[in-house]
Amino acid sequence: LKIFSCSSNPKLAKDIARYIGLELGNAQMSKFSDGEIHIRLDDSVRGSDVYVIQSTSAPVNDHLIELLVMVDALKRASAKTINVVMPYYGYARQDRKARSRDPITAKLVANLIETAGAHRVIAMDLHAMQIQGFFDIPVDHLLGVPILGDYFHEKELPSPVVVSPDHGGVVRARRLADTLQAPLAIIDKRRPEPGVVEVMNIIGDVSGRTAILIDDIIDTAGTIALAANALKEAGAKDIYACCTHPVLSGPAIERLEASPIVEIVVTDTIPLAEPIATSKMKVLSVAPLIAEAI
Amino acid sequence: LKIFSCSSNPKLAKDIARYIGLELGNAQMSKFSDGEIHIRLDDSVRGSDVYVIQSTSAPVNDHLIELLVMVDALKRASAKTINVVMPYYGYARQDRKARSRDPITAKLVANLIETAGAHRVIAMDLHAMQIQGFFDIPVDHLLGVPILGDYFHEKELPSPVVVSPDHGGVVRARRLADTLQAPLAIIDKRRPEPGVVEVMNIIGDVSGRTAILIDDIIDTAGTIALAANALKEAGAKDIYACCTHPVLSGPAIERLEASPIVEIVVTDTIPLAEPIATSKMKVLSVAPLIAEAI
Ligand SMILES: Nc1ncnc2c1ncn2[C@@H]1O[C@H](COP(=O)(O)O)[C@@H](O)[C@H]1O
Ligand SMILES: Nc1ncnc2c1ncn2[C@@H]1O[C@H](COP(=O)(O)O)[C@@H](O)[C@H]1O
Repeated sequence: LKIFSCSSNPKLAKDIARYIGLELGNAQMSKFSDGEIHIRLDDSVRGSDVYVIQSTSAPVNDHLIELLVMVDALKRASAKTINVVMPYYGYARQDRKARSRDPITAKLVANLIETAGAHRVIAMDLHAMQIQGFFDIPVDHLLGVPILGDYFHEKELPSPVVVSPDHGGVVRARRLADTLQAPLAIIDKRRPEPGVVEVMNIIGDVSGRTAILIDDIIDTAGTIALAANALKEAGAKDIYACCTHPVLSGPAIERLEASPIVEIVVTDTIPLAEPIATSKMKVLSVAPLIAEAI
Repeated sequence: LKIFSCSSNPKLAKDIARYIGLELGNAQMSKFSDGEIHIRLDDSVRGSDVYVIQSTSAPVNDHLIELLVMVDALKRASAKTINVVMPYYGYARQDRKARSRDPITAKLVANLIETAGAHRVIAMDLHAMQIQGFFDIPVDHLLGVPILGDYFHEKELPSPVVVSPDHGGVVRARRLADTLQAPLAIIDKRRPEPGVVEVMNIIGDVSGRTAILIDDIIDTAGTIALAANALKEAGAKDIYACCTHPVLSGPAIERLEASPIVEIVVTDTIPLAEPIATSKMKVLSVAPLIAEAI
């Protein structure tokens, strides 16, 4: 068993290796002057079961190609099996043709990873469960809810209610609600007429309660910030938000800072930039969960 | 017949389309807030023979993934054939295992392009001819030498000698020499002992002649600048340099400016940044050549 880290998430990779009681494999990863990725393995992998840790978070294309080159190098170095651990799977939201003449990039990414030579994939909280079916190789799908649930369980918040920011996230929110033995509420966005602003309608009772918003990804934080405002207006007392994948692009941090959310709980599938980490953000590690799956 | 441009080289794509007498196909190409590429075709391609123009020059990983997503979109929109035109093929120099446990990224790239759904590839001056064999689909391989040769032919330089900067480039230099009916010289780099600086030995007569250095790629311009110095010392009168692919990364421009080279002739397989284009650089277009191949 050998574990290699690509460059997206070296801290998480180290934590996973330590949890298992291994050192990370040695590989040189650099770029040539023109930006082409250059990888060279320093350790032998002949006949080994190899795990590669890489989130395809931003810069997504660099991280994706780096992963593919790494898998190619492992294949040519006669690794017995190549197991790709993608704590965050980039392009997961491009999972279907929303309109005709759209690509399905999440499927393309699956094809690329198989073509490079992967034998198995371990992923976490895929945006759409269908992505497992995009692969012809085994996919282990891990969930962040137990980690987030444990954290909120220990906090013993007064009369919690778990809130899904949209209908797509109800299954996930249901799981967290079950864990916390809390009721469920759903934000029901509706556009009464085309061109008119959306109305945020809350299904379920949040008044006087501690609301816990949950989503798989917080990207620009538009959805979660609007949801938090709607919850505040509906009389929620404290508002927490949590997600597995803190993408946090563009105006995300400003929006979260300006929102009535008191704490944002995320995991380390995507590493946070330093200034982000110092805001009202709490980071939980998925290293034990992934280590157990390896 | 439809021609689409990805984002690496829109000017060249437009020139190719104009030469053929077509408009470029319409496609939206943008990035989401987190940097993920988003493509949507605006024109129908059902049943069409489609050509996509994209050099995988820097930023190489962005350009490569964009190309793959474009091919995926065309495939799902029922294009009859998808023909990938790569005036510059990135990662071409990673074409073999220089040491054990190296990837062969040029082969990986070929696999990725086939997996995405390409039916045919048109490329120019591949760094290694073997890359054609990395594909299981047809590869049309175009040469820049005739374009460069025409230019120098018209210049009627006094007693020209064509110089290959290394042994790997002799076939290409031979072709240019034949076109110009000029003699050939070769720079023979040798390291007399390990750790000692290389000696630039010139095989062939350059004294009093106009030297024309030719290479496929000028990247950091280290090789070509050293070669030019050696030619000057050996008594060459004027020194020209030419290549198909002006990668020009890192210290390239400074080195070229500081070198005794009087003119650097390149093609538009890779677009030049504006400040580069204003130096002693002459750009020839490959648009007619590619248009003829389409
Ligand atoms: N990287 C991205 N950033 C923002 N939106 C995206 C991204 N990728 C896909 N989308 C869009 O997000 C939507 C998918 O989200 P959902 O409806 O929650 O599955 C689709 O409309 C996509 O076009
Ligand atoms: N993007 C790149 N920039 C600089 N050197 C590279 C690049 N890609 C590959 N190489 C190296 O260039 C050499 C191949 O050049 P050649 O010997 O002329 O075929 C190999 O040693 C590669 O490791």
